[in-house]
Amino acid sequence: MTDPLTYRAAGVDIEAGDEAVRRIAKLAASTLRPEVLGGVGAFAAFCRLPGGLVDPVLVSSTDGVGTKLKIAFEAGRHDTVGIDLVAMGVNDVLVHGAAPLFFLDYVATHRVDPLQVEAIVGGVAEGCRRAGCALVGGETAELGDLYRPGEYDLAGFAVGVAERSRLVTGAATRPGDRILGLAASGLHSNGYTLARRVVTERLGLGVGDVIPGVGRTVADELLEPTRIYVPAVLALLASVPVSAMAHVTGGGVTENLPRVLPEGCRARVAPGTWPVPPIFDVIQAAGRVAEDEMRRTFNMGLGYLVVVRAEDVGRAASALREGGERVHEVGEIVAGPRGVEYA
Amino acid sequence: MTDPLTYRAAGVDIEAGDEAVRRIAKLAASTLRPEVLGGVGAFAAFCRLPGGLVDPVLVSSTDGVGTKLKIAFEAGRHDTVGIDLVAMGVNDVLVHGAAPLFFLDYVATHRVDPLQVEAIVGGVAEGCRRAGCALVGGETAELGDLYRPGEYDLAGFAVGVAERSRLVTGAATRPGDRILGLAASGLHSNGYTLARRVVTERLGLGVGDVIPGVGRTVADELLEPTRIYVPAVLALLASVPVSAMAHVTGGGVTENLPRVLPEGCRARVAPGTWPVPPIFDVIQAAGRVAEDEMRRTFNMGLGYLVVVRAEDVGRAASALREGGERVHEVGEIVAGPRGVEYA
Repeated sequence: MTDPLTYRAAGVDIEAGDEAVRRIAKLAASTLRPEVLGGVGAFAAFCRLPGGLVDPVLVSSTDGVGTKLKIAFEAGRHDTVGIDLVAMGVNDVLVHGAAPLFFLDYVATHRVDPLQVEAIVGGVAEGCRRAGCALVGGETAELGDLYRPGEYDLAGFAVGVAERSRLVTGAATRPGDRILGLAASGLHSNGYTLARRVVTERLGLGVGDVIPGVGRTVADELLEPTRIYVPAVLALLASVPVSAMAHVTGGGVTENLPRVLPEGCRARVAPGTWPVPPIFDVIQAAGRVAEDEMRRTFNMGLGYLVVVRAEDVGRAASALREGGERVHEVGEIVAGPRGVEYA
Repeated sequence: MTDPLTYRAAGVDIEAGDEAVRRIAKLAASTLRPEVLGGVGAFAAFCRLPGGLVDPVLVSSTDGVGTKLKIAFEAGRHDTVGIDLVAMGVNDVLVHGAAPLFFLDYVATHRVDPLQVEAIVGGVAEGCRRAGCALVGGETAELGDLYRPGEYDLAGFAVGVAERSRLVTGAATRPGDRILGLAASGLHSNGYTLARRVVTERLGLGVGDVIPGVGRTVADELLEPTRIYVPAVLALLASVPVSAMAHVTGGGVTENLPRVLPEGCRARVAPGTWPVPPIFDVIQAAGRVAEDEMRRTFNMGLGYLVVVRAEDVGRAASALREGGERVHEVGEIVAGPRGVEYA
């Protein structure tokens, strides 16, 4: 005679889930905006639109953190990848001139550990505060058959809103425009499959080891959260016209900037006009990675790009610096086939 | 001397990703609504609001499919779990009276196989067509270090919109209201950890075996897509006042209906008033699962609940049946502590 099965025995611990939900609720409350209608939506989240919009457009994006998560697993440090998750979504929404309004997260894990989930979602809430958006909902799924013990995956969903007439699509870009590069905080959330191979296989480093030439541990350097450019860029948009913007994610400057350039516009980026953080030199040297490959895998120190008219460069750079960004004029738009050249 | 590393060699196949994206774009195009602004949002998706709303409220939800995915892996059948993904999101949004507007998906996989991704997203697009919402964006992530070969996880994100004054929160519910149950298409997307254990361990069945007492194979029965109640329920809401609604997901009727009941309202559900599909009897008998446990793990044949005034039962049931649903009057609201009793 076999024992009766219960849902818990079959692998889903409802009480741990409930405990995690209680912890998440407190974190989410720290991110709320006046548009959020709280306490009424049992199955879904409610959010009104900011006032004063004539033709509001919802701008949405979804993304994950990728294999940066593996560093978090190895380091046992789970409180920053949520910042990355938010950054990946809100910086994409920001590219089109939209102010992030709300965010939802999906956390899938081998087993719900309320403290680990709290750390993860604590990062998500921190990212939402930095971006000024509300964490209105999420799902925590225990999928023991899909994820290995101690491991999880994250997906995030960002929704922003913009006045239709003020959407930034890149169509206004023209030759003669200048490219401003905003400093990245590190690798951000892309290129980790390659970075991890170099650091662990070629350099033989563990997460607690200091990276020679960088002076920080693997964990500290590779878990540095992705920078959230929302406050500075929204302040810029309120005062200076912008031709185009790009979030430098997988594909680097090489592949991301052309996504917003119109036909006949080519970006000429001048190496040496911004400081490349030492981690990229370390990866390139130890992995013997070609320069081109580096530039279409990593951000190389530029996490976000803003294209403005030549006469607006000074005002734009000032506005971004007042917003806390490190800004470099890294190139210009020239006539030519859509793409990026380094010269 | 070691070989230079490239991003592809490090595990991310950009060309397979590009091929998958091309296939997805065609599928997404089949779901578009007039509100979607296409071809302009390189980093994010653009969607306007439907016209005529005075105080629009965005109603959003995120969810996954859970370990139902394991059946899809074992059966090598990937074209239906996307329907489940959409159903989990849009039925939640629908609970509050919102019409699903757009959807985004996150697909994370061991290795991007363009044909497999096309099958998955084909299901997502089919779900979006059934729900009348647009698939506006998504992310396909290749995470070979996180997922096992052949495996993947899905997360979905649904956004609907409702006039604020017409939101359904459940607050209008009062004793004397009647509960209508809409037939489920099967297990939907919950309880699979338990269901799989019973079917594989207790019954010793493979995905191709016919389940005794059910007459369908494990794959056919357990991959039956979650029903999407959107068209019928939106038609109902246009003609009959509704007190409350609930989507019967993890926790069953027992835990989901109370989520929308006000204090002092108790649901009295009468077993025998609807047909319980044979799969639940098989799971209960083979797993020796207690009745209570069944009722807070599975939908028991009722995938969605609608609570209406007693005098509206006939009109509501007719409207839902005209929308293609099988409808049963399964109980009533009585005065008492918030909860569900079966009697």
